[in-house]
Amino acid sequence: MQTTPAIILVRPQMGENIGAAARVMSNFGLSDLRLVSPRDGWPNEKAIAMAAHGEAVVQQARLFASVAEAVADCRYVFATTATRRDMPKPTLRPREAVAQCHANTAILFGPERAGLENEDLVLADAIIEIPTDAANSSLNLAQAVCVICYEWYNQKDSVQPHGGSQDLCTREELQGFFDHLEGALEMRGYFRVAHKKPLMWQHLRSLFVKARLSEQEVRTLRGVVKALTMQAPDHRSE
Amino acid sequence: MQTTPAIILVRPQMGENIGAAARVMSNFGLSDLRLVSPRDGWPNEKAIAMAAHGEAVVQQARLFASVAEAVADCRYVFATTATRRDMPKPTLRPREAVAQCHANTAILFGPERAGLENEDLVLADAIIEIPTDAANSSLNLAQAVCVICYEWYNQKDSVQPHGGSQDLCTREELQGFFDHLEGALEMRGYFRVAHKKPLMWQHLRSLFVKARLSEQEVRTLRGVVKALTMQAPDHRSE
Repeated sequence: MQTTPAIILVRPQMGENIGAAARVMSNFGLSDLRLVSPRDGWPNEKAIAMAAHGEAVVQQARLFASVAEAVADCRYVFATTATRRDMPKPTLRPREAVAQCHANTAILFGPERAGLENEDLVLADAIIEIPTDAANSSLNLAQAVCVICYEWYNQKDSVQPHGGSQDLCTREELQGFFDHLEGALEMRGYFRVAHKKPLMWQHLRSLFVKARLSEQEVRTLRGVVKALTMQAPDHRSE
Repeated sequence: MQTTPAIILVRPQMGENIGAAARVMSNFGLSDLRLVSPRDGWPNEKAIAMAAHGEAVVQQARLFASVAEAVADCRYVFATTATRRDMPKPTLRPREAVAQCHANTAILFGPERAGLENEDLVLADAIIEIPTDAANSSLNLAQAVCVICYEWYNQKDSVQPHGGSQDLCTREELQGFFDHLEGALEMRGYFRVAHKKPLMWQHLRSLFVKARLSEQEVRTLRGVVKALTMQAPDHRSE
């Protein structure tokens, strides 16, 4: 029972693209690769070389003589196209489409030069159109596979928010640093125009608040202020 | 004035990947490609061959000797990584990140084998993590670029306004402050254990990157360093 969508490359021309497609499938947790009449026969050494850690996907790829045979066990078939065709089929963006990629779904990708023919599209329930710039709409085959696999992986995996606030310093620690810095600056006459001090000091503190400092970073900054306020060795007296 | 994000390939190894990245940038309407020390020099014939209709992006790519120079005119920097690093920076998924890609944003991609180093990550405001399958998390470089460019193109017409990046300082201004601070700290022996300096200096810079400083704030901080390094009036001699 097929639980992830099948990626079907229809009449692919270059072994390198088959290998790169297999690699990126593996990157995004897909493994069911099917090939319909690859131009240079099968197996293909260039495909294996390009697959890198996706080699197992290439090794297990299944070969078919026609699109119809390749999709035989599937219950829903998408076809990817670069350009709109005059076909009365629903057309979805990748993100919408992958949300419908359940078990027994196949996604067809056409050959490098020409893309899928209308005869291939006939078998598709819906079209996936990857939006591209009109000035250069021709995606590399493996890049098109990349976009679809990425979107599939993305929606099966719920996003984990991270970058938490658990190691932020306390406001007390921050205040300790502010007192230290203020004292050091006062001593050196930094706030020389008294009535300007409140605003200057506000801006300076804001900048450190914005940095969302950790405890360690506060200690580091205190070390910096301490170091900077030490008298430089007076070389003239040597 | 840069209106689309810059794609920065840091120490890319294979010309084919540079070309494939350029092609997919062009597919998704991006054109500002920057290269930091490509392994095989520049220009690179394989990059041109792989770029197909993205050839103009390769031809206009700019070459830099360091990440700092490549991002000098940028106000916000993302770094892509495959694996989580021990870096206290916000980590976003591609879709969340591109919603914050305004003018003068750069996105860093590391070399094929090793990815970005911590030294490269220091300069980044945030990390973009492309979710991948744990069993094979290593995305091809051009596929990683594909995912980001695809997401950018997808949302470019619906960019959410946020606490605008237009007031952020440029990386060049930030670097000027770093140089100033580093000089002042060096002079006072702050980095007294030489082998600890790289990490200390990384942490210190990270903290200021995190603050998302404005131009005015950078000037303020330079004033602070200047003030702190002035010799305190010696009251004993009065």
